[in-house]
Amino acid sequence: MANKKKSGFYPDWYREEAPKNSYRSIFKWGDPNEYKAPSRQLYKLMKNVFEMTDDDFKEKQEMGLDTVDIDVPVNLSDDIIKELKAIVGADNVKTDTYTRLRVSYGKTMIDLMRLRKKIVENLPDVVLYPSSKEEIEKIVVFCNDKKIPLYVFGGGSSVTRGTEAICGGISLDLGQNFNKVIDFSETRQTITVESGIFGPALEKILNNAPETLKQFGATRAYTCGHFPQSYEFSTVGGWVVTKGAGQNSTYYGKIEDIVFSQEYATPVGNIKTDEYPRCATGPSMDHIMMGAEGTYGILTHVTLRVFRYVPENRCRFGFMFKDWKSAVETAREVMQMEAGNPSIFRISDPTETQYGLNLYGITDTILDTFLEVMGYKDGERVMMLGFSEGEKNFAKNVRKQIKKVAKKNGGFSITGYASSKWETGRFRDPYLREDMGDYGLMLDTLECAVNWDNLQQVYEGVRAYCESRPNTICLCHMSHLYPQGTNLYFIFEAKMNDIDEYLTYQGGIMDNIQKYGAAMSHHHGIGKMTAPWFEAQVGKNNFEVFKTLKQHFDPNNIMNPGGTMAFDLPEDQKRDFINK
Amino acid sequence: MANKKKSGFYPDWYREEAPKNSYRSIFKWGDPNEYKAPSRQLYKLMKNVFEMTDDDFKEKQEMGLDTVDIDVPVNLSDDIIKELKAIVGADNVKTDTYTRLRVSYGKTMIDLMRLRKKIVENLPDVVLYPSSKEEIEKIVVFCNDKKIPLYVFGGGSSVTRGTEAICGGISLDLGQNFNKVIDFSETRQTITVESGIFGPALEKILNNAPETLKQFGATRAYTCGHFPQSYEFSTVGGWVVTKGAGQNSTYYGKIEDIVFSQEYATPVGNIKTDEYPRCATGPSMDHIMMGAEGTYGILTHVTLRVFRYVPENRCRFGFMFKDWKSAVETAREVMQMEAGNPSIFRISDPTETQYGLNLYGITDTILDTFLEVMGYKDGERVMMLGFSEGEKNFAKNVRKQIKKVAKKNGGFSITGYASSKWETGRFRDPYLREDMGDYGLMLDTLECAVNWDNLQQVYEGVRAYCESRPNTICLCHMSHLYPQGTNLYFIFEAKMNDIDEYLTYQGGIMDNIQKYGAAMSHHHGIGKMTAPWFEAQVGKNNFEVFKTLKQHFDPNNIMNPGGTMAFDLPEDQKRDFINK
Repeated sequence: MANKKKSGFYPDWYREEAPKNSYRSIFKWGDPNEYKAPSRQLYKLMKNVFEMTDDDFKEKQEMGLDTVDIDVPVNLSDDIIKELKAIVGADNVKTDTYTRLRVSYGKTMIDLMRLRKKIVENLPDVVLYPSSKEEIEKIVVFCNDKKIPLYVFGGGSSVTRGTEAICGGISLDLGQNFNKVIDFSETRQTITVESGIFGPALEKILNNAPETLKQFGATRAYTCGHFPQSYEFSTVGGWVVTKGAGQNSTYYGKIEDIVFSQEYATPVGNIKTDEYPRCATGPSMDHIMMGAEGTYGILTHVTLRVFRYVPENRCRFGFMFKDWKSAVETAREVMQMEAGNPSIFRISDPTETQYGLNLYGITDTILDTFLEVMGYKDGERVMMLGFSEGEKNFAKNVRKQIKKVAKKNGGFSITGYASSKWETGRFRDPYLREDMGDYGLMLDTLECAVNWDNLQQVYEGVRAYCESRPNTICLCHMSHLYPQGTNLYFIFEAKMNDIDEYLTYQGGIMDNIQKYGAAMSHHHGIGKMTAPWFEAQVGKNNFEVFKTLKQHFDPNNIMNPGGTMAFDLPEDQKRDFINK
Repeated sequence: MANKKKSGFYPDWYREEAPKNSYRSIFKWGDPNEYKAPSRQLYKLMKNVFEMTDDDFKEKQEMGLDTVDIDVPVNLSDDIIKELKAIVGADNVKTDTYTRLRVSYGKTMIDLMRLRKKIVENLPDVVLYPSSKEEIEKIVVFCNDKKIPLYVFGGGSSVTRGTEAICGGISLDLGQNFNKVIDFSETRQTITVESGIFGPALEKILNNAPETLKQFGATRAYTCGHFPQSYEFSTVGGWVVTKGAGQNSTYYGKIEDIVFSQEYATPVGNIKTDEYPRCATGPSMDHIMMGAEGTYGILTHVTLRVFRYVPENRCRFGFMFKDWKSAVETAREVMQMEAGNPSIFRISDPTETQYGLNLYGITDTILDTFLEVMGYKDGERVMMLGFSEGEKNFAKNVRKQIKKVAKKNGGFSITGYASSKWETGRFRDPYLREDMGDYGLMLDTLECAVNWDNLQQVYEGVRAYCESRPNTICLCHMSHLYPQGTNLYFIFEAKMNDIDEYLTYQGGIMDNIQKYGAAMSHHHGIGKMTAPWFEAQVGKNNFEVFKTLKQHFDPNNIMNPGGTMAFDLPEDQKRDFINK
């Protein structure tokens, strides 16, 4: 390794495809042949912060290379399995442990830890690959009849234990066969898809609409506008039921803004929401169904708004600010200036800025020195980057107005370079987790929503808690902004591979998110992980409304049971840091 | 009258303030001293279409000048009244028939007809003027305890019988004392108000924020962005619970987009929605509550998003198109061009264009002649007008891009003149109804929501039905546009003052709105008038969800009972034109 010679020891990161049917093949992020190791500079920094030496990086641990060879018995009768085969076809019914484990665990840190430690629990008894809305509707009726728990697995990127089959039963893996385009309208700019379609498949179809959607009369290229961090390994259905946000949500909106219409199969019948952009005919069914995370029913067909695809109009920008405060002020003012919103808009706190400059190769360059001299000091300075898009003049003017506001607040233009660099690697950060995990290091994220009035108290409070643990790194950024507030996205890294220690630390962060007045999630959802905090966050009376809806749709509690959204969580497992 | 001499007979419209406590004082629109008569040209046209002569306009009928002097008994015990007085104060409890009639009827055509015919029915027994959220919360608890029906009256402009106290009981007139500003945040650009505040009061406060909101630290001028046709005579609470739309909704959004947070008093306790611009913590409580029209609970405090007030940046525009089709095509393309939306955007169909040109004084001018010569023929041509606003360059570019699309589709610029004229008279059209009613003429409106795919079939189908009645005028426009669709607003005028004839005709229009696939309302709401069509429009399974929520919040059916949203409507009164 040329690098090794140049700068001393650098770990020998694992660079092989995970063995077939191994634990690692389940917890490894994304493409089996894609990897991302900490850069040399990050490695140096990590050793420093975690008080580790090169020696600590000489032996890997709990790599999960073993095959999943445990045989977990199936608790459903042969008759049931036979009936399921009659619905979806024998080829689409799986009962082997590996397949069942794969659809139960997601990418929550505790999933990764359990897989490294070969802890296999909470498996569905059978996994089905349905191919049509009608099959799913039949399965829901069947499960309700027989009172069999029913789970749904999409792309597998849940970070809230959203798909974990706590009560066994059936899990539907929708990504396999339930991923077709059902309809497209160029006139009203909508596409209707089966909920198991993956992000890139959908985007490719839309970008090439005149070819791929010829049968529907498409003549232009479109984009879906929704690119979450998990974009490559998540499905449209997953986005919708958890209320996800794409990285470009500041312009295109969160998924709830992009959804036009939905169909669900529920135990009490099918739900089809209306197909009007807005109306005044009662409460919004779309908003009653979104965010229920599979506890009310299964999302089958989804109609999304689509947007004209004009990537050539992108106007990139980047600014450095002397401190967090002036960057926050700028961000807020941009969102309130009534000139249209940027598409990507990211503001990294001083610690993340340090890492970002490093990552984008700016550290120790002439620009870096210049910035220091100009008073943009390492450890205090804050980076803002992004791009606008849409119609050409519109996009240009958004950048122009942002520049004006940034300048007023002491922002120094670092051009669109950092933004381009970010764009290139935009979906690659999660790959870091495997290499770090191999040396007992944990990299996890928690995110929340705030308004501009309580942003600072949440930022300071949560950060203080994160850093109260010695030898722990905490980064934070805003990436989904609104005139009234923003998300706050926390990334923390520590030498930690004990599950209990991890859960205690993570629970403490969530306690503090709640204590300082943020929403427990801006776009990850609740799942089973955040469920203990759910009732205290939304308030008892609101929680009762959600429970009433749950009872209405799913009187036998077969839909994603076992703690999801706290609907069947025992009272003594509910956390409430505010009232304690 | 100089005009009379110039152009023959012109009716002697009633121009006196309606007598105190008269029926007319209730049904007359808006300001007691404001009037709007059909112009001479419209008068001529009306005579022609309705086959009437000057003689028909010599004697007025059913003017409602009599005092409301019927004494309708109060069906609540003295003890109850005493307890209510203890809650809101003796001065804020009214039991006279006039006050009770005034809060039960709105501005639905059938209300006007009943008042002209002195039909007094469905009165609450008592009217209260609460002054605080706490008082309202107490009233709800009290009514639920005693099972007393509870209604709410805001500005009185309901056109769906939304406030009619079918079951008697108590009506709260919130506009009287419940109209204060509770909080304002310049940082997050929100204002919190009591739900009884009227539009102009709120807007005046926001426009003059540095003076009026000084105690909250305001330094800039703001706008609410919500200006419905009923703006001057409607309350924030009314806007929210019926899911209203302002004339500028194409830019600022419908009220559900402007609402940031809400508080409700319901029979099962108070509901407070969250204060984050977006989050992923379960279904949206805001969207569960909005649109329930007082059947789930009473909206008390409302927090609205506000916007920077920069009217000086408005860019007006106006275009004439050769036909409806090319104007619709232009409108759709504008909404999909990704350059930002215009604020006011109105497209009148050929008939309304005729009336509009007349109204704005363009008919028979040189411009008119020129347009005819250029092929923009009377009866076929279609007018589009509006303005953009927001940041200066943004607003300019929106107009520029609209111009580009319009030109491509054969639009001829008629400058911003018609738009300015429209702006001046924007809230005055409803005043026409009194003068027409005095001669037995009915002017009513019905509106619906469509997507771009079914717009044409709804437009043609509903129009054909409207005009199947001889001597009837039907105008139509789009005024709230989206990338995926628009509203369609129908105005119809006829010689008609028989209630049954009116109801049959109106029911037929609603049957056809439903038959051709539109939503029964884009922004008027459902109330009691459209309730018979409600279940068929949303579908049985969706309706059951709304009913489950109703049962949850209001197990004793005390909140706006008597057919609102069809929750307690007998099956045989439900219409379903689609399945018949």
